[in-house]
Amino acid sequence: MENKSPLTVVKIGGNIIDDAAALENFLSDFASLTGPKLLVHGGGKLATRTAESLGIVPVFHNGKRITNAPMLEVAVMTYAGWINKFITGKLQALQTNAMGFTGADGNLITSEKRKDTTIDFGFAGDIKAVNTTLLKLLIAQGIVPVFSAITHDGNGQLLNTNADTIASALAIALSKTFDVELLYCFEKKGVLSDIENENSVLPKITFDSYKKLKHKGVIHSGMLPKLDNCFEALSQGVSQIGIGGPEMLQKDNSIFTHITS
Amino acid sequence: MENKSPLTVVKIGGNIIDDAAALENFLSDFASLTGPKLLVHGGGKLATRTAESLGIVPVFHNGKRITNAPMLEVAVMTYAGWINKFITGKLQALQTNAMGFTGADGNLITSEKRKDTTIDFGFAGDIKAVNTTLLKLLIAQGIVPVFSAITHDGNGQLLNTNADTIASALAIALSKTFDVELLYCFEKKGVLSDIENENSVLPKITFDSYKKLKHKGVIHSGMLPKLDNCFEALSQGVSQIGIGGPEMLQKDNSIFTHITS
Repeated sequence: MENKSPLTVVKIGGNIIDDAAALENFLSDFASLTGPKLLVHGGGKLATRTAESLGIVPVFHNGKRITNAPMLEVAVMTYAGWINKFITGKLQALQTNAMGFTGADGNLITSEKRKDTTIDFGFAGDIKAVNTTLLKLLIAQGIVPVFSAITHDGNGQLLNTNADTIASALAIALSKTFDVELLYCFEKKGVLSDIENENSVLPKITFDSYKKLKHKGVIHSGMLPKLDNCFEALSQGVSQIGIGGPEMLQKDNSIFTHITS
Repeated sequence: MENKSPLTVVKIGGNIIDDAAALENFLSDFASLTGPKLLVHGGGKLATRTAESLGIVPVFHNGKRITNAPMLEVAVMTYAGWINKFITGKLQALQTNAMGFTGADGNLITSEKRKDTTIDFGFAGDIKAVNTTLLKLLIAQGIVPVFSAITHDGNGQLLNTNADTIASALAIALSKTFDVELLYCFEKKGVLSDIENENSVLPKITFDSYKKLKHKGVIHSGMLPKLDNCFEALSQGVSQIGIGGPEMLQKDNSIFTHITS
C-alpha cells in the first residue's frame, strides 16, 4: 500500500453551531489541527428560526422535513450564506485559509433529487459524485474547504443534502489520495449506551457490535444513519472514524467513540 | 509591454438580478463569452424584502443605508447565500464552471470597516487588498469566480462592500497579469445624457468629458461613484471599460458607453 499523506475531515453538528461559545471553542480547536483538513457543517436552528420569521410553514412527512421551494431558499441563505461565511471569516482570523463551498461551487458535489415512490421529498438531494481534482488542488495550496449542506444537480437546481452524508462522501472520495480520518463532532461525548447518561460513551463500535447494539435497541433513531454513513466510509477506504464531542479534536486526553471494522 | 491574455470582468447590477427573465438572459450571454471571465453581482431587492419580512428596520443616513448587525446578517444570507449560489448553480447548468465567493473565502478580498469622523456606517468595508495568487490559479483551471458584495477584515468580521468597487478592485489587481476588460452591466443601455430618454446613450466618455458632464450636471448621483471607479480602474491598468445593458455582452451590434482615458 502506498504511503498517503493524512487528511482530517470534520463534520460539526447543528447544536454546536447554535451555541456561540461552543462554536468559538470548536473553531479554535479545529484551526489547531495540524495537516490538511476539511470541515462540513450542519445547519442548526437558524434555518428554522428564519423560516418561522418569514412565515414559512414547515412541512413534515413521518417526522422528516420536506424541503419545498421557500425552505430551500432559506436553507441556502442560512447554511451557505450566514453560517458558512461566518465560519469562514472566523477561521481566517485563526490563520486558517478557509474557503466556503456548496456542491455547486466548482461543481464539487453533484446530487440528484431524491426519488421516492410514495412521497415527494422536495428539493432534497442524494449525492452522485464528488469532483476531487479541484479539491485536491486547493488542499495542496493550503486551503481548508468548508462545506455547507447544499449540493446541486448540474441542471441549475440547488438541493438540500444531509451534512453527515456529505462528510462521508467527501471522506470516501478523498481517501483515494489521502489517509483520511473522519470525525463526527456533535454535542454528546460519543455514542452512548444509555441516552440518559452522558458518560456512558461506548469507546469502540465494530460492525459486529453495531449489529448487536441495533438489535438490542441500544442504538436507534438519528444515530442509525450516522453509523451507517460511518461503516459505509470504512468499507470504502476511510482509515479512521470517530464520533464525539468537540474535545475529540484534542485527541490525547478525550473519550469518544471509535468506529472500526 | 508583454502580451497578456484577456480576462473579462463583468459586474451585474441588482435590477437585473431582480428580474428573473433578464437574469436568465444575462447568464446565458455571460456563459457564452469566450476566454477567462469573472462575475461580480450586486444585491437587488431580496435583502430589503427579507429584512422587511424579518422585521428589521432599515437605517439610513443622508440616503445611505447603514449596515447594522441584523442587516449585515441579511446581506450575507441573501448576497453570499441565495443570490450567489443561485447564479453559480445556473452557470454550472450552462457549462460554466462557476465558483461563488465572498472576500473571506481564501482570504481573497480584505477590507476595513469604514471610518468616518461624523457617523458610524456600521459593517461597511472599504477594500484594502485583493489576493490574486489563488484567483489566478483558479482561473488557470477554468474556474469562473463569482463574487458577492461581502468582504472581511481578517479578524473575523464580515463587511458589506460596494459591488462596483469590488469589480474595479478585482479588475485592477488582475490587470497586472491579464489584459482586463471591465463591463458594468445594468438595466440602462449606458450612461444617458438625458435620464428621461433611454436612447440618449453617450457612446464614449473620456476623463475630460466626464469633468465637463459632471460640471454641467448631466452626470450626477449614483452614476458618479460608478464613473469614479471606472477612471480609477483605467488609470491603474485596466484596458477597456464599458457601461451598458446586458446586450453589451453581445458586442457586435450593441450600443453602450465606452469609458476611455
